[in-house]
Amino acid sequence: MLDSAPPTDISAWFDSFARHLAARDIDGLLELFTEDCYWRDIVAFTWNVKTLEGKPAIRAMLEATLVSTTPSAFTITNTTQRSGVLEAWFDFETGVGRGQGIARFDDGRCRTILTTLQALKGHEEAIGASRPLGVRHGADRNRRTWTERRAAEEAELGSTRQPYCLIIGGGQGGIMLGARLKQLGVPAIIVERNAKAGDSWRNRYRSLVLHDPVWYDHLPYIPFPPHWPVFTPKDKMGDWLESYVKLMELNYWTGTEAVSARYDAAERRWTVELLRDGEPVTLKPAQLIFATGAYGPPRFIDLPGAGDFEGQILHSSQYSDGSRYKGKRVVVIGAASSGHDICVDLWEAGADVTMVQRSPTTVVRSETLMDLAFDIYSEAAVEAGIDVDKADLIAAATPFALQPPAQRALYEKIRARDADFYRRLEASGFLLDFGEDETGLMMKAYRTGSGYYVDVGASELIISGEIKVKAGVPIERLTPAGIRFADGTEIPADVIIQSTGFQSMHEMVAKIVDRETADAVGPCWGLGSGMRGDPGPWHGELRNMYKPTAQEALWFQGGNLALSRFFSKFLALQLKARYEGLDTPVYSPPLQ
Amino acid sequence: MLDSAPPTDISAWFDSFARHLAARDIDGLLELFTEDCYWRDIVAFTWNVKTLEGKPAIRAMLEATLVSTTPSAFTITNTTQRSGVLEAWFDFETGVGRGQGIARFDDGRCRTILTTLQALKGHEEAIGASRPLGVRHGADRNRRTWTERRAAEEAELGSTRQPYCLIIGGGQGGIMLGARLKQLGVPAIIVERNAKAGDSWRNRYRSLVLHDPVWYDHLPYIPFPPHWPVFTPKDKMGDWLESYVKLMELNYWTGTEAVSARYDAAERRWTVELLRDGEPVTLKPAQLIFATGAYGPPRFIDLPGAGDFEGQILHSSQYSDGSRYKGKRVVVIGAASSGHDICVDLWEAGADVTMVQRSPTTVVRSETLMDLAFDIYSEAAVEAGIDVDKADLIAAATPFALQPPAQRALYEKIRARDADFYRRLEASGFLLDFGEDETGLMMKAYRTGSGYYVDVGASELIISGEIKVKAGVPIERLTPAGIRFADGTEIPADVIIQSTGFQSMHEMVAKIVDRETADAVGPCWGLGSGMRGDPGPWHGELRNMYKPTAQEALWFQGGNLALSRFFSKFLALQLKARYEGLDTPVYSPPLQ
Repeated sequence: MLDSAPPTDISAWFDSFARHLAARDIDGLLELFTEDCYWRDIVAFTWNVKTLEGKPAIRAMLEATLVSTTPSAFTITNTTQRSGVLEAWFDFETGVGRGQGIARFDDGRCRTILTTLQALKGHEEAIGASRPLGVRHGADRNRRTWTERRAAEEAELGSTRQPYCLIIGGGQGGIMLGARLKQLGVPAIIVERNAKAGDSWRNRYRSLVLHDPVWYDHLPYIPFPPHWPVFTPKDKMGDWLESYVKLMELNYWTGTEAVSARYDAAERRWTVELLRDGEPVTLKPAQLIFATGAYGPPRFIDLPGAGDFEGQILHSSQYSDGSRYKGKRVVVIGAASSGHDICVDLWEAGADVTMVQRSPTTVVRSETLMDLAFDIYSEAAVEAGIDVDKADLIAAATPFALQPPAQRALYEKIRARDADFYRRLEASGFLLDFGEDETGLMMKAYRTGSGYYVDVGASELIISGEIKVKAGVPIERLTPAGIRFADGTEIPADVIIQSTGFQSMHEMVAKIVDRETADAVGPCWGLGSGMRGDPGPWHGELRNMYKPTAQEALWFQGGNLALSRFFSKFLALQLKARYEGLDTPVYSPPLQ
Repeated sequence: MLDSAPPTDISAWFDSFARHLAARDIDGLLELFTEDCYWRDIVAFTWNVKTLEGKPAIRAMLEATLVSTTPSAFTITNTTQRSGVLEAWFDFETGVGRGQGIARFDDGRCRTILTTLQALKGHEEAIGASRPLGVRHGADRNRRTWTERRAAEEAELGSTRQPYCLIIGGGQGGIMLGARLKQLGVPAIIVERNAKAGDSWRNRYRSLVLHDPVWYDHLPYIPFPPHWPVFTPKDKMGDWLESYVKLMELNYWTGTEAVSARYDAAERRWTVELLRDGEPVTLKPAQLIFATGAYGPPRFIDLPGAGDFEGQILHSSQYSDGSRYKGKRVVVIGAASSGHDICVDLWEAGADVTMVQRSPTTVVRSETLMDLAFDIYSEAAVEAGIDVDKADLIAAATPFALQPPAQRALYEKIRARDADFYRRLEASGFLLDFGEDETGLMMKAYRTGSGYYVDVGASELIISGEIKVKAGVPIERLTPAGIRFADGTEIPADVIIQSTGFQSMHEMVAKIVDRETADAVGPCWGLGSGMRGDPGPWHGELRNMYKPTAQEALWFQGGNLALSRFFSKFLALQLKARYEGLDTPVYSPPLQ
């Protein structure tokens, strides 16, 4: 609801906008936009996640989609100034759904517009006033209680009744998508390798604590309570996810591994071979969703001479607890988040620790990030009426293409504020950067998902020399006693930990479906920025995530808690529309 | 925050009120009240739960408490009209705490005032902006992770470290109190006989579903999510409680029975003997809280000739599932909620069912109750900004003494609306009443905790004769084949189910402490209304619940979810104050 009437010119703008859309007068409509305009659509117009950059791209999108979308009923719900820019929130309808959007203005014309699908008409979630009754009153000799219906669902789904969706991976991404689908009435099974929901967090290293604050991490439907810690410890997160799976009544198969999957295009069904508690099970879902983690399988780098090395080599994903390394000489290869955390954990356990840094890292102090970057995800924001759903929409309203300048400005502030910290860190020999274009942590996260560290303690240990750093010198080979570098130096080691990240999620497709399909689909994540690790062409959105891919009925879900939360809604709506047999014409122009 | 300024006369009233309190001018203060005035205080002035009725009682309370309470800083936070009565919400402070209250006015003077303690200064809950960080940033060789600290707490509490509070009974009442104490940092252990948290719900009869709606049933800290059903099925409730115990990190001992307890007044400690998984354990808590259910142990009535009866006799608490009684003749003795529910369950299972009604029952259709009685606990209320905490305070602002007239008016409406239903129900022979003073279900609940049924289906089966009723005729004796009544009739039976309620909670005190203490403390629950089952003298509050009793360091917690939620806060604050060694002078005048 509006606290006060919107500015007259904004009302007039929306009147024109709606009139031109209704008349399919695209020329007239484009007059309402600035020259360097952007239209980000999430499933409302395009049945895709797309940012159209500039008038020709917007024109092409509207020409292709207006007839089927039939947008209408635009209503301004709020107007506000954000960082000096006039912002209008609006609701609208399409032929099949209800949407919500944000438009931002520059001198009376629209520079960016976000349109999102929020619900499918006639298929709304049963929440609030329309929540289920929980019981059928009256007498009924065929009554099935909630317990009996739930038990029947668990027994039947995947046995006498096929799920519509199969989600591979029961971490946060799979769980949140599963919860959305459950609320939309789409039969889904989540399969998880581990013994319990939450184990993907529990199994990580002992000292792991979320680096993002609680206000950014909420799951849908059951938000974290007000006493929840700012930074959730890993096992507490595991417990939350485990309870969430139970309380949301998800069909969640633990101890289950996906072995192979093949798609029958004629039948429009997958055949997926699974091992459930070691027993083979075949499922025939219509849709297959990979939610196997923000990244893919562990990435090992090639270490010449590894066979000679007499110590132990492991990957960071296998590391849990430093106590067994007390007094040992441990070399950690890798200088991103896990590398830093593991070095601290080892140091705290009394190991002799060296970090091998192969390329520069973006480092930001946690406190600084909290003060400057999480303004819309904070207690203050909540008190100002910006709940997590509103914050998500505000964040989504800025197209990826416009984020680098804003991020660059943010990092100028950060570097000024923490100049002394950065000077001392560089003096230790540590290689610092803020991305090739000085845009910092968040853009690195979107582009490559790696190469950064939110400092919660490691940097001061590096500065003081408690954690030694060997930076920027290539590894020549392992020797029986350690690592020899290209500069002729050698670091003795009892243990080498490869904190070298994970492969792209599409490697899981290669493993479970086949290499051909994986190659056709291409890599996940990254924007096509042309920066290191994120080759072009430019996509303007995260590659392959949360939207149709080159392989029919194959989808990807993942990312941190915030991205999993936000996009699980739209991925669930895309799946629901297909489940209900709605027409879902995907607009997918050649890349820009 | 106030949407608009309070009416001038209300501002002036509060100015006078605060000035007279500060000056301890009780004569002047009483001028501000109507002749038939009420002051309900929950722990703020009296360290007790007390309603002072009339000016002499209020005068006596203020004379006794003002010096130690030092109330100040009265601030109006909202004014509103409720049912034609002007109502003002206010915050205030005492020497040790922060409070909240509601005053209602009649022609410029206050008729009822509620004062409640909401927090102890310097001991506020760590929520919202003051929530814990969850991790200590920086490097720390003595770091204990969250998991390690939590494991240590579980290992130490009750072993090397004594709990300050021991809560006997891990149902909803014990759990909510445990959660409040946890958030206040008071070491507490909850002991529960069953194998899992939530089993006290799971173990009840198959078709049990809460009769109160979700908006009335929230637990503190983690409210039910928006998709939660209106009426929670028993096993789903069990799952929620089980997750709640885990997520709130309660020290909850399952499979544990309290065997005996004795208080050492000199040492000010209890010695409690427990059996934990069959092994004896001794605890020495400072405070002992009975939370063994809204009522006490099952109540069996004396059935002459029971030894002759060749069928099965059981109590409703032992009944789970009707399926084993298919085709059998079952007589259910008792016509309150469980009696009705069990009759339906049996009928649905195909049993031949007769209900023996020994005294009249208050029946209200669930739909009618939802429409007319749960107005402040509803989706509409939530949308109007009345969350569960506000609703609780609104409900608490009406003293018990003033509830009968309002309830009588409500039941006049209900009886008019459902006149046809009631006519048909009485025509079946069923004995209907609305309490001795026509005040209906809620007053019966407060006075005796029994004698009513929220109709969710049984009544139509009674009307149609599918469930037979034998009403108002005393049982003479059991025969080998059934029940013979005083009117000479006999009903054959294979099974007799005593749905005859539970004993007062203070019987648990007799069992675990001793009869002398139980008798000194007296019965729990009931208002002393003088109505059947609730002997005088008039208390004006629920006897012994949530407040100091005649036995030092012995407390009672219980009631439905709503009462457990609301009063757990105030009981926890009373315990916290004692834990911190604050002065807690209990005002407890002789009964009125």
